[in-house]
Amino acid sequence: MSETTDAVSVEVDAPLGVITLRAARRRNPLSSTTMKAVTAGLRRFHEDSDVRVIVIRAEGPAFSAGHDLGELVDRTLDDERAVFDTCSELMRTVHEVRQPVIAEVAGMAFAAGCQLVATCDLAVAGRSARFSTPGVRIGLFCSTPMVALTRAVGRKRAMHMLLTGEAIDAETAADWGLLSGVVDDDDLATTVRELALHIAGSSARTVSIGKQAFYKQIELDEASAYVEMSETMATNAMTCDAQEGISAFLEKREPVWTE
Amino acid sequence: MSETTDAVSVEVDAPLGVITLRAARRRNPLSSTTMKAVTAGLRRFHEDSDVRVIVIRAEGPAFSAGHDLGELVDRTLDDERAVFDTCSELMRTVHEVRQPVIAEVAGMAFAAGCQLVATCDLAVAGRSARFSTPGVRIGLFCSTPMVALTRAVGRKRAMHMLLTGEAIDAETAADWGLLSGVVDDDDLATTVRELALHIAGSSARTVSIGKQAFYKQIELDEASAYVEMSETMATNAMTCDAQEGISAFLEKREPVWTE
Amino acid sequence: MSETTDAVSVEVDAPLGVITLRAARRRNPLSSTTMKAVTAGLRRFHEDSDVRVIVIRAEGPAFSAGHDLGELVDRTLDDERAVFDTCSELMRTVHEVRQPVIAEVAGMAFAAGCQLVATCDLAVAGRSARFSTPGVRIGLFCSTPMVALTRAVGRKRAMHMLLTGEAIDAETAADWGLLSGVVDDDDLATTVRELALHIAGSSARTVSIGKQAFYKQIELDEASAYVEMSETMATNAMTCDAQEGISAFLEKREPVWTE
Repeated sequence: MSETTDAVSVEVDAPLGVITLRAARRRNPLSSTTMKAVTAGLRRFHEDSDVRVIVIRAEGPAFSAGHDLGELVDRTLDDERAVFDTCSELMRTVHEVRQPVIAEVAGMAFAAGCQLVATCDLAVAGRSARFSTPGVRIGLFCSTPMVALTRAVGRKRAMHMLLTGEAIDAETAADWGLLSGVVDDDDLATTVRELALHIAGSSARTVSIGKQAFYKQIELDEASAYVEMSETMATNAMTCDAQEGISAFLEKREPVWTE
Repeated sequence: MSETTDAVSVEVDAPLGVITLRAARRRNPLSSTTMKAVTAGLRRFHEDSDVRVIVIRAEGPAFSAGHDLGELVDRTLDDERAVFDTCSELMRTVHEVRQPVIAEVAGMAFAAGCQLVATCDLAVAGRSARFSTPGVRIGLFCSTPMVALTRAVGRKRAMHMLLTGEAIDAETAADWGLLSGVVDDDDLATTVRELALHIAGSSARTVSIGKQAFYKQIELDEASAYVEMSETMATNAMTCDAQEGISAFLEKREPVWTE
Repeated sequence: MSETTDAVSVEVDAPLGVITLRAARRRNPLSSTTMKAVTAGLRRFHEDSDVRVIVIRAEGPAFSAGHDLGELVDRTLDDERAVFDTCSELMRTVHEVRQPVIAEVAGMAFAAGCQLVATCDLAVAGRSARFSTPGVRIGLFCSTPMVALTRAVGRKRAMHMLLTGEAIDAETAADWGLLSGVVDDDDLATTVRELALHIAGSSARTVSIGKQAFYKQIELDEASAYVEMSETMATNAMTCDAQEGISAFLEKREPVWTE
């Protein structure tokens, strides 16, 4: 696996693609190298028809503590820009790949780690996980994590997290919409695997059409969104997998997907 | 009632207008004919000053199972487009009519049925109601329902429903903001009627101004929204009903509406 | 304090700036005079480097009952416009000042009072507080409060409040995202003070960068938001306070802020 580094493994476990942060002892910092490796892994999976769902997980007691702060001291403005551009490119790539991306979150997900959770299509955490955007405490407001955070949890809750730096627990994160699920720590890996395999059982073409459509329509005013989505859905309906799926449903049999 | 068909009844029960899906045995599919009948009913109510609030309800154990799948197999792309354009026109009309539209939801509201619930101004469900966007399971991603769903429940929860096709119960739907209320099944009809009559007791002109303003401001950036809404509110304040309402409040008496 | 009037006091209690509505017996109406005094107070604090966090509170059993209705009867359209423009200017100013603004809410926050709560960066209420947008009952739909309300609580819940005029309690308001916190009435003042002082302990420059960025990014599509926020964060990282904060964190010592 050419994308695998000391800090990141990128593995196909068909029908899943699994990206694992494995700098466990350093709490999985999102260094530039790590972010580029995750982005490269996502892009490889995007091209791999054996991969139908992607999981991002981490080894050790932390999902990710956020940026590698050593990369942010005594640098030029261009150095700083490069770090945050690399981070934004990772987040954009999570949305751009054709497969759903699920964050499997054990332990802390702080700053850019919290941003990655907020950005993934789905996110399931163990009950002891904790989430925060603590940049304000070190003089560096979590302005890029804020983009994903406010779109997940709304204004007042995002503001509270951003201004205080306080962590929230997994139950609260699920209640606020940052997570799509929370389970006992011991059940996390199994739950995510079952969820991923469940989704992988659908037509990959259909899922890809839907994911792409999701991020397109969400930026549009409602009238424009309906124009776009009506066309998307009409085109989707003409695909082999939709015709097969509808026919199977009407005939009360299991569908057989082409893609 | 010219709009009434076998599958849809459109009735004035002043001050309410009631649209009832009544293909109960087929779980109230939103066929093109049915969608056009509902749209026509809404438009008639829009012109009828006796109708101050609209209720959309259904006979039988299902609110609506969604599109009539028979209309989506072995068709041309233009046929498919026609179905989804008809659906989007129905949803747009719900927002365009001057009266508030309340969904009274008993039983399943799936796919386009869930979309209709998400689109109505208010929605109250019985406790046993269930909601899902299961298109992914038949190869046809619920891309048009997604427009209304994401705007009601947010990203992570919408994604979970869309990617898994799993149903949520009424309590969850209320907790996520898909419903404005949930009550015991036996209390559903009474609760919706009381809610509708309560709103019908307000000035119809004021309610109409407010509803139109709601969907205008929600698409704007906040600064533009304030410019528009300041003008809306100043103009509203000059109406007979506002002058009467404010005076009645200051004089501690009941207002008498002109409209 | 030149901004202090009979109805509003504007006081520096460094590092806090405190604006108090004090027409308690009249339930703190947001008359044009009062709104202008609050706006002027906010602007003074904006220029005062001793003020790191702003609190808006009220004397008596009500936070604010909303507009002074006497200002809205028997007026010209231009008079009405002036009232709502003054109100919108107040709300805009809450977002524009560089310090976080916290609403401390005891008792009723109705109509424009509810709008002010929705607009503040953070809002903490006592458990007996109540929130509503009751304009529909007096013929004057709460169209300007709607701008802030829908952006805080979402569509269905905002519609329910706007169309029925019903009040919600503080627990519900917190659950819906209108508040960032709810505490026992007796603990309200202490809780808000501790929250304000906690935030005031951060770099004022960093907090100001973050607040300004928050309201900028929230209006943008996600891709544009990331472009803007990457630049904001890179620039932020070059400030003295960020360099000090990151270094202090890496050296496991307390930071000393310049600003």
